[in-house]
Amino acid sequence: MKKHERNTYLNSIDLDEAVEILLGSLADSKKTEQIGVTAALGRVSSAPVFAKLSSPYYNASAMDGVCVRYEKTASANEKTPLRLKKNTDFLVVDTGDPISPPYNAVVMIEDVVEIDDETIEIHSPCSAWQHVRSVGEDVVVGELIIPSYHEVRPVDIGALLAGGIQTLEVIKKSFVTIIPTGTELIENPDEIAEGKIIDSNSHMFEAMATEAGAECVRLKPVADDYETIKQTAAAACETSDIVIIGAGSSAGTEDYTRGIIEEIGELKFHGVAIKPGKPAVFGTAGNACVIGVPGYPVSAYFVFEYFVAAAIKAHLGLAQQDKPTVTASLTARVYSSLKHLEFVRVKLGSVGGRLVASPLSRGAGVTMSLVNADGIVKEPKNTEGLEAGAVVQIELMPRGGDISKETLI
Amino acid sequence: MKKHERNTYLNSIDLDEAVEILLGSLADSKKTEQIGVTAALGRVSSAPVFAKLSSPYYNASAMDGVCVRYEKTASANEKTPLRLKKNTDFLVVDTGDPISPPYNAVVMIEDVVEIDDETIEIHSPCSAWQHVRSVGEDVVVGELIIPSYHEVRPVDIGALLAGGIQTLEVIKKSFVTIIPTGTELIENPDEIAEGKIIDSNSHMFEAMATEAGAECVRLKPVADDYETIKQTAAAACETSDIVIIGAGSSAGTEDYTRGIIEEIGELKFHGVAIKPGKPAVFGTAGNACVIGVPGYPVSAYFVFEYFVAAAIKAHLGLAQQDKPTVTASLTARVYSSLKHLEFVRVKLGSVGGRLVASPLSRGAGVTMSLVNADGIVKEPKNTEGLEAGAVVQIELMPRGGDISKETLI
Repeated sequence: MKKHERNTYLNSIDLDEAVEILLGSLADSKKTEQIGVTAALGRVSSAPVFAKLSSPYYNASAMDGVCVRYEKTASANEKTPLRLKKNTDFLVVDTGDPISPPYNAVVMIEDVVEIDDETIEIHSPCSAWQHVRSVGEDVVVGELIIPSYHEVRPVDIGALLAGGIQTLEVIKKSFVTIIPTGTELIENPDEIAEGKIIDSNSHMFEAMATEAGAECVRLKPVADDYETIKQTAAAACETSDIVIIGAGSSAGTEDYTRGIIEEIGELKFHGVAIKPGKPAVFGTAGNACVIGVPGYPVSAYFVFEYFVAAAIKAHLGLAQQDKPTVTASLTARVYSSLKHLEFVRVKLGSVGGRLVASPLSRGAGVTMSLVNADGIVKEPKNTEGLEAGAVVQIELMPRGGDISKETLI
Repeated sequence: MKKHERNTYLNSIDLDEAVEILLGSLADSKKTEQIGVTAALGRVSSAPVFAKLSSPYYNASAMDGVCVRYEKTASANEKTPLRLKKNTDFLVVDTGDPISPPYNAVVMIEDVVEIDDETIEIHSPCSAWQHVRSVGEDVVVGELIIPSYHEVRPVDIGALLAGGIQTLEVIKKSFVTIIPTGTELIENPDEIAEGKIIDSNSHMFEAMATEAGAECVRLKPVADDYETIKQTAAAACETSDIVIIGAGSSAGTEDYTRGIIEEIGELKFHGVAIKPGKPAVFGTAGNACVIGVPGYPVSAYFVFEYFVAAAIKAHLGLAQQDKPTVTASLTARVYSSLKHLEFVRVKLGSVGGRLVASPLSRGAGVTMSLVNADGIVKEPKNTEGLEAGAVVQIELMPRGGDISKETLI
């Protein structure tokens, strides 16, 4: 009954306060690196980028046809066509060919009447620079192509290359080390037995960290031995921006994360007033931040989403983005405790053209409630629940469910 | 004046009809492959997946504490606490430890009073299975984890692993070959000169194809030589699902794409009633589809988006998704031709709390109008334009602009 060895929570602080502490604890200066523009999809610029070249670099024909001097075409009309001589009055041009002085307009091929190999007729006057793609129409030298802290999209890659840019300074991705802990963890399902659990959370974390824009390494599960976990965490803090310790974040006898953070760094909070996800623990060690994520899958998901993904976004200099929401009415009453902000998983459906939300299982361990959820209702602290029929805002799960477009409108 | 060598458009068909022809021409049977679940993020399942194991695999303690037989605790209350003997009446358990017969309930450590090393007292009766995480709470053996044609998310990876699944059958990614064409194309901006253009479109295509979920190879630019382009395209059709020929899709003297498709396969359409993007050409050759994309960057973007990206999604068995939209009023009149569906790039802003959309440059070659756009107004065929003040639907550009959340609500 090693009761004296049990931790107690510091206290459960509110989610907003916890996120603020976490974001305030991140190292301020951003690490950057130079990469090729063609490898920059999804990366974040660390400085504004200006065009080095104009595109097009020269006045170019925008049509197949002939180039002429527009000043000399004023007299052309249907009744008195204008005859022009090759290489004196006009040149044959294809789309993209340069238009150089003295030429300053293009007549499209459809409007040219061929008289012989050397002679053409046109039937209307030209305006200056007609059908000419002028220097810099696409991108002008010196023009801002992308600002700083901009996530590079395909169109940006096109514009950067067209503007003569080959390499780009971007924010380095956060380096995340994931340390699954627990003597009960196995990696091979063939070894399943009473007392054994397949390590699935750490792979979910890997995928979430990758989606959030981090580089990520997952270690093999570490047994519940305080010294081994401490040494593994301390080593990871030397090389990582963010260290995740999976499980062991609560206040049980084998919950070592808090003690380890206190020993190798500085504890910032332990316990957040959210459900699932209460046993989150956070601290810093050197330049790394260490996040203890609970072992229950659904708790783990929310703690990762609100803390780890937020830290990764902040490292990249990106704003924390609100999730898309819909409004629906609850099909059943949801009870809740006064002490926590609760994340209620719901399934959406349409009844008589109205969007309705059915609460799914509440357990912190019920992974399938997360897989099957279309969205999350946030049930605020200090309320005892939501009545059936209550109209609530629902944060949509990424790519969740099969809500038909009509249902949503 | 090689007028006789010029192509003419088949005719300009409507966008919807063109997309229908394209999707109807795709090979029907989907290629699949087996991959590890941990590498499946973003991949698309080709069949429903059911759990092979329950998780947890055994009844597990949900708390640190002691496990007891609930039937024997009925008499416990504050006035007459119940004394229990270690290894006879109770066992000490940590969270996750197995609860095996005859035990069937857990008392949390906070509710246990230690009398001596062998004896405890409890002050209230237990209910059956209290604080026990029962077999399959997380995932039940045989339960559907993900359906077919489901894009794998981090939570799915967690649930699949927890359900004993290690490998997954997924749809093979489309293999896309991009062939930039044009004697004027250069890859190194130091070689810029009159008549030279930096090849930027093909790299934008590479990024767009990757984002859409394809595997992609980009060839070096091929000069404007009919035979060389034809051989390159024919070879690409042997190994690819989709072959993109960049530039040469119009009706000029050096626009070879249509002729090449007619020679190596079957032409399906040439010319779509959209602006920018009219000179799109599409056909099939063997099992590959060949898409001729115009050379102007903005035309290229829209043709890629509506045809290539759509083909990639269809190959994956995914529904074509509508883009998120907002409603705004136009700040200026937009003129347009009766003959085309027009894509008008707009910048969004807020005036007096109302969302307004300012049209940007209309040119097919103005890449920066796409980079700077927050969204696209679709101006239908058979309308002469939209009046200033008209309230229009705007398709938001992916990650476009910096429209503040408040502006949008």
